[in-house]
Amino acid sequence: MTLVPGFGLLESGMSSKKNEVNIMIKNVVDVVFGTLTYWAVGYGLTFGTGEGANWFTGVGSFFLDPDEETMGTEFSKFIFQASFCTTATTIVSGAIAERTKLTAYIAFCLLNTVVYSFPAHWVWSKDGWLKKMDVVDVAGVGPVHLVGGVTALVAAIMVKPRYGRFSDDQVTIHGNSVNAVLGLFILWWGWLGFNCGSTFGISGGKWKIAARSAATTILSSCSGGVMAFLLSFLLHKRKFDVQLLVNGILGSLVSITGICAVTTTWAAILIGAVGACVTTFGQIALVKMKVDDPVGAVAVHLMGSLWGILCCGLFGLKDDIEHSFSHHDGLVWGGGFYLLGVQTMAAVAIIIWSVVTSFIVLKLIDLTIGLRLTLEEELYGADYCEHNVELPPDVKEYAELVLRRLKEKSEREKKSKGNVPRVELVNSTPDHPTDNSPARDTEDLILENINKSSDEEATDNDDKVRKKCEQKESGRTNADESLRQNNGLKGNIQDGQKSAGGNLNRRKRARKTVVFAPTKRDQKVEGGQCNPAFEN
Amino acid sequence: MTLVPGFGLLESGMSSKKNEVNIMIKNVVDVVFGTLTYWAVGYGLTFGTGEGANWFTGVGSFFLDPDEETMGTEFSKFIFQASFCTTATTIVSGAIAERTKLTAYIAFCLLNTVVYSFPAHWVWSKDGWLKKMDVVDVAGVGPVHLVGGVTALVAAIMVKPRYGRFSDDQVTIHGNSVNAVLGLFILWWGWLGFNCGSTFGISGGKWKIAARSAATTILSSCSGGVMAFLLSFLLHKRKFDVQLLVNGILGSLVSITGICAVTTTWAAILIGAVGACVTTFGQIALVKMKVDDPVGAVAVHLMGSLWGILCCGLFGLKDDIEHSFSHHDGLVWGGGFYLLGVQTMAAVAIIIWSVVTSFIVLKLIDLTIGLRLTLEEELYGADYCEHNVELPPDVKEYAELVLRRLKEKSEREKKSKGNVPRVELVNSTPDHPTDNSPARDTEDLILENINKSSDEEATDNDDKVRKKCEQKESGRTNADESLRQNNGLKGNIQDGQKSAGGNLNRRKRARKTVVFAPTKRDQKVEGGQCNPAFEN
Amino acid sequence: MTLVPGFGLLESGMSSKKNEVNIMIKNVVDVVFGTLTYWAVGYGLTFGTGEGANWFTGVGSFFLDPDEETMGTEFSKFIFQASFCTTATTIVSGAIAERTKLTAYIAFCLLNTVVYSFPAHWVWSKDGWLKKMDVVDVAGVGPVHLVGGVTALVAAIMVKPRYGRFSDDQVTIHGNSVNAVLGLFILWWGWLGFNCGSTFGISGGKWKIAARSAATTILSSCSGGVMAFLLSFLLHKRKFDVQLLVNGILGSLVSITGICAVTTTWAAILIGAVGACVTTFGQIALVKMKVDDPVGAVAVHLMGSLWGILCCGLFGLKDDIEHSFSHHDGLVWGGGFYLLGVQTMAAVAIIIWSVVTSFIVLKLIDLTIGLRLTLEEELYGADYCEHNVELPPDVKEYAELVLRRLKEKSEREKKSKGNVPRVELVNSTPDHPTDNSPARDTEDLILENINKSSDEEATDNDDKVRKKCEQKESGRTNADESLRQNNGLKGNIQDGQKSAGGNLNRRKRARKTVVFAPTKRDQKVEGGQCNPAFEN
Repeated sequence: MTLVPGFGLLESGMSSKKNEVNIMIKNVVDVVFGTLTYWAVGYGLTFGTGEGANWFTGVGSFFLDPDEETMGTEFSKFIFQASFCTTATTIVSGAIAERTKLTAYIAFCLLNTVVYSFPAHWVWSKDGWLKKMDVVDVAGVGPVHLVGGVTALVAAIMVKPRYGRFSDDQVTIHGNSVNAVLGLFILWWGWLGFNCGSTFGISGGKWKIAARSAATTILSSCSGGVMAFLLSFLLHKRKFDVQLLVNGILGSLVSITGICAVTTTWAAILIGAVGACVTTFGQIALVKMKVDDPVGAVAVHLMGSLWGILCCGLFGLKDDIEHSFSHHDGLVWGGGFYLLGVQTMAAVAIIIWSVVTSFIVLKLIDLTIGLRLTLEEELYGADYCEHNVELPPDVKEYAELVLRRLKEKSEREKKSKGNVPRVELVNSTPDHPTDNSPARDTEDLILENINKSSDEEATDNDDKVRKKCEQKESGRTNADESLRQNNGLKGNIQDGQKSAGGNLNRRKRARKTVVFAPTKRDQKVEGGQCNPAFEN
Repeated sequence: MTLVPGFGLLESGMSSKKNEVNIMIKNVVDVVFGTLTYWAVGYGLTFGTGEGANWFTGVGSFFLDPDEETMGTEFSKFIFQASFCTTATTIVSGAIAERTKLTAYIAFCLLNTVVYSFPAHWVWSKDGWLKKMDVVDVAGVGPVHLVGGVTALVAAIMVKPRYGRFSDDQVTIHGNSVNAVLGLFILWWGWLGFNCGSTFGISGGKWKIAARSAATTILSSCSGGVMAFLLSFLLHKRKFDVQLLVNGILGSLVSITGICAVTTTWAAILIGAVGACVTTFGQIALVKMKVDDPVGAVAVHLMGSLWGILCCGLFGLKDDIEHSFSHHDGLVWGGGFYLLGVQTMAAVAIIIWSVVTSFIVLKLIDLTIGLRLTLEEELYGADYCEHNVELPPDVKEYAELVLRRLKEKSEREKKSKGNVPRVELVNSTPDHPTDNSPARDTEDLILENINKSSDEEATDNDDKVRKKCEQKESGRTNADESLRQNNGLKGNIQDGQKSAGGNLNRRKRARKTVVFAPTKRDQKVEGGQCNPAFEN
Repeated sequence: MTLVPGFGLLESGMSSKKNEVNIMIKNVVDVVFGTLTYWAVGYGLTFGTGEGANWFTGVGSFFLDPDEETMGTEFSKFIFQASFCTTATTIVSGAIAERTKLTAYIAFCLLNTVVYSFPAHWVWSKDGWLKKMDVVDVAGVGPVHLVGGVTALVAAIMVKPRYGRFSDDQVTIHGNSVNAVLGLFILWWGWLGFNCGSTFGISGGKWKIAARSAATTILSSCSGGVMAFLLSFLLHKRKFDVQLLVNGILGSLVSITGICAVTTTWAAILIGAVGACVTTFGQIALVKMKVDDPVGAVAVHLMGSLWGILCCGLFGLKDDIEHSFSHHDGLVWGGGFYLLGVQTMAAVAIIIWSVVTSFIVLKLIDLTIGLRLTLEEELYGADYCEHNVELPPDVKEYAELVLRRLKEKSEREKKSKGNVPRVELVNSTPDHPTDNSPARDTEDLILENINKSSDEEATDNDDKVRKKCEQKESGRTNADESLRQNNGLKGNIQDGQKSAGGNLNRRKRARKTVVFAPTKRDQKVEGGQCNPAFEN
């Protein structure tokens, strides 16, 4: 559970300011609903040894309420394992941030416990089929991070990108990077505790191996950090991108999670460095594939854990301690391909399980509650729409501008097409291949039309306000220009990063398509700032 | 002590932005002054076994400085118990936030140690009269939360509501909800530590009962959380109010505090759910009774702990462990009414003690230092007035507007009444029944007059600026309207909640009474934003 | 390591908002690069017992990778000691905040491990020369805080003050004081852990002395806190300055660090109170000496630790526990001057070592990478320039104003002097005695010229905008005036404090020199706010 506030703060800090409260509340939901369902069914499915328990599932210990004799062990294990379960769920909240209904997320939390519990049984219960094959997973790289990462990917695809995420005129509202880095620190130290605790908590007294876990965990993360600084320096033209740094370090922490107690410091350093690379390039690839993951959760947990699971097969060391974590040496220590094979099988099995079950869970929710916020809610932000938090003025203005244009377009369409019902528009839009939810299509089509024709629309009356906007823009451009000239910084930024440079480019394009250009009704607006007060 | 930063962040996040630093500093004061007085007298009054110690009070161990033989036990106990003491004090800081002098609060911290120490002696010292009657209180539901909650209520009544809190034209400046939720998380995990630590720390080796404490604590809070989500969904028209959620969870944590080590998981779930209800409706009732508690501390700690103390009598389980926490079964396990009777007596005794002593302490401070900030200080905010923190422009504008109007009124009064001295006004104001402090009365009267006559005052000259204000308002209204139409959300909000919807309603009313309407002097002000730069 | 996020948040909260992300990232750098170098060489230099290890240095255990037999002890010690090492480095990041290149800071982190490791060997290794003389240092007052503080002073002098820090027209942009106080809390509880852990971690089982450490640490900090509140009340005209309070408490924590396990509660209270005084007056002295330390790190760690090291000689108690911390009684317990002498020698030796080595390290970096950001980067802030974080509009405006004026001046100079090359200007500037880096000189000279002649420059065309600025100013002045009249607060603030009152004074002066006065090109700018949109 200690990791949840870390994830919350990290996700909040990486989300736009109109959603930073909502994402914190989603992390509260993780604990509240996730722990209850883990108590009710999850713990039993994972560790139940009652009649019917087999290689695939545990049975018994549902609604956990042990007697005084066994309660010490049972409750300790429950608390520790419930933390793993809620962590697997909270990973998903980041990937679907800024556009998912809170009620849908609550339903997801309730159901995701089941998605998590089976792989946990396979890997950690003495009856589990992977455990019997001597799979190595010290602190949950498979059941926690791979399950979480895969589910995050499925969810991010199903809930579709945020409005305008991959269009030219996106208005990026930066998050609170201080909170993001503070979240990293909470996760970092929490992770150390988890990785050490996993050795203590499960078999007791193994303090030596716990000390090694701490050392390999911290060294892996530092090595991943160095790699992240290096990659950012190279990819971002000598700038250090906060999201890349944070996710690089987290990626290296995920990578070491499975093997931490049973490897050497040198291997840890290698594992962390590669983990950070995998995470960074994974994130770039996801952006290229137009999968919208606001915080990079998929890259960190899916890519990082895949590498981490294989690492156990490569760098795992046989240990002689009671209830040992690893009965075989990995490939590089001359242990042959057996362990690597088992680890690969575990990865494949967990991926298939997670894809199938999370798809079913999310589809069920989408068909009943609906996964996605309406466009209005998304534009105004979940903080305002779901929690009555104050609406920031710039968010409000942008939302109103988009909505007014939508309305105008819709009216124009009606006139020209003679009151064609909106449903027809939906049916005529086959251009979203992965699109399963009907909710967005109408809006998408309308907005596409707006963007196409917005150039024609800009009238002379807009000149005054647009001029001011451009003055403001040019001020920014000048600032950038001045820095470039003086520092030799190029300032052009790789795709897929929330960066000021990136914004600049996007905004330049935006100015060309005049999405911001106000209509006649704005003519009377005056003021030194670019905040025209739109009336309806 | 680990709870204090949690309380600080929570209170800071729920206060308006002009007081968020001040409330953090008040939590520093809690630790700094509270720990010193606990070292000097509190520890001795609670656990002193010197000559004169009896059922009512401990004596000895003042200015604690044990020899090498006993220092291990004594110092450990001191550190742990000092945390309880400072927690009891810090509860109060939230209830009197945004209007209390820091110097008065320092004096309160010094004296409140005494208020806390006697009930702690009764419940936890082997000499204490409640202890001898086998009262059950594992982790301080009585001495910490009930004492803190009662004191908070007395203090909130004595210091009176914030300016305009229960009038129609209140301008709500939202706090930082991310910080509030982060504060919840710190408290949540700190609470787990406290409830487990209480079993270990006092009698050692009882790891089983500590594990049970952790499980019941987390399950109670999750059950309380579910109830809070449900209540918020129902009471706030499908919205999830941050303060209701946070306080619901805290209320369930308070409820389980006394019984955590000696009950079942099922009981914990019931206790938490009822605890969240009690807290939520308690808060609504306090607003109805016009008790101003900015963070809901009274509802959480007073209502929550009352329920929690009774729970020990209802759901407590006799345990057989050495130095056991409970020698009797509760009512529902067939233990009869004895334990419930003792718990009720404890609650009554602690309430009477806390009301009397905290009233004396606060009255003494009010008569010497004065509890309350001046109206000017309150309007500009304690951050600026007590700590020289930057004054936010919107806070400054609102404060100046109110103060200018006050001045104009006062001058008008003088003219019409022929220079009546202000003191006379005070004497002629008997309309504050619970009002003991003379400081506010003049201002209140003047402001009431202003509000009454402000309608007549609005002249044609104000039109331009007001129009802009209304445009801004109508923009907000439109945003709300648009959401309602599209989402079927009703958006009307229950009373007593800091919510955007609530603001909207209040602001609409505010527009009617034209409190914001500027006078002739503002005529020359221009600008796209509603920030008229007032000169004196 | 647990202290690092505390320092990060503290430093971030005390820095201006254009650098608050950068300083968090610098604390990430501390962990990432500092831990790796400590693993590679630092641990070996400190505790290595291989061939060649002597009184001055350890040898062996480089690239730590112990076998299964010794790994428990070795890794535990490594993790704990790596935390000390990164803490020594992170202290410096605060003192050179807001003007140091991140790449330079990374190089510093890599090299500072060496600066730290030798004093650590002297004090804590059984071979160390100070250890052999029975020096007392329980939790690192010498190797951590004195080394860190001295290095911070050297670095702050070498990197020179922030632009305009000691000139009349400085525009102070306040930091986030809530984060600063939260950082204090994290440090506070982390410190408790460190001081207790130091007794456990090194020789095991000494729980009594650990409990005493906790008690003396918390009491010292509370006593320091009381003193800080008192000093702030007296020095700041009845206001409680956040930075003074925070640094007072930290100073008392540093003071008790060396002696915590081997002194009495009464001594702890005295030590803390004096520690807070030393820190407060140290900070005032540094401002007088025009050493720019944005967060007060030098005062806290250098002054605090000097007092703390001497305290061991004054108040240290001989203890009889195995591997005891103190073999001698201090001066006040009749132990004579031996211990005081050893402590003084330790302080002198560590200071000399730190000054020399840190100067070499920083000089090397300055000559290769360059320590300092360019003026442009400093004005726009490291958040924008190094991390692509959003540029706050007010920061951008001020930066552009300064840069435009610089350009105009430069052009004017060229015309009047007939195209004198800029390099010549550098050579003609001997007015920076401590100035070793050539990077700033040109700019400094130009800016001095600007400031001198800016009065003449203000033309009639500036009137409109300046008037608005003055209206805004006068609004602020009125707010202050009103508070003074009503509360009897004087509002004048001591030098060297970031305070609203201080800003007011500085701004008044700024208005006189018309630094803000815009030129003809701004004539067309309109708006209710003082944000003229400058074009180039």
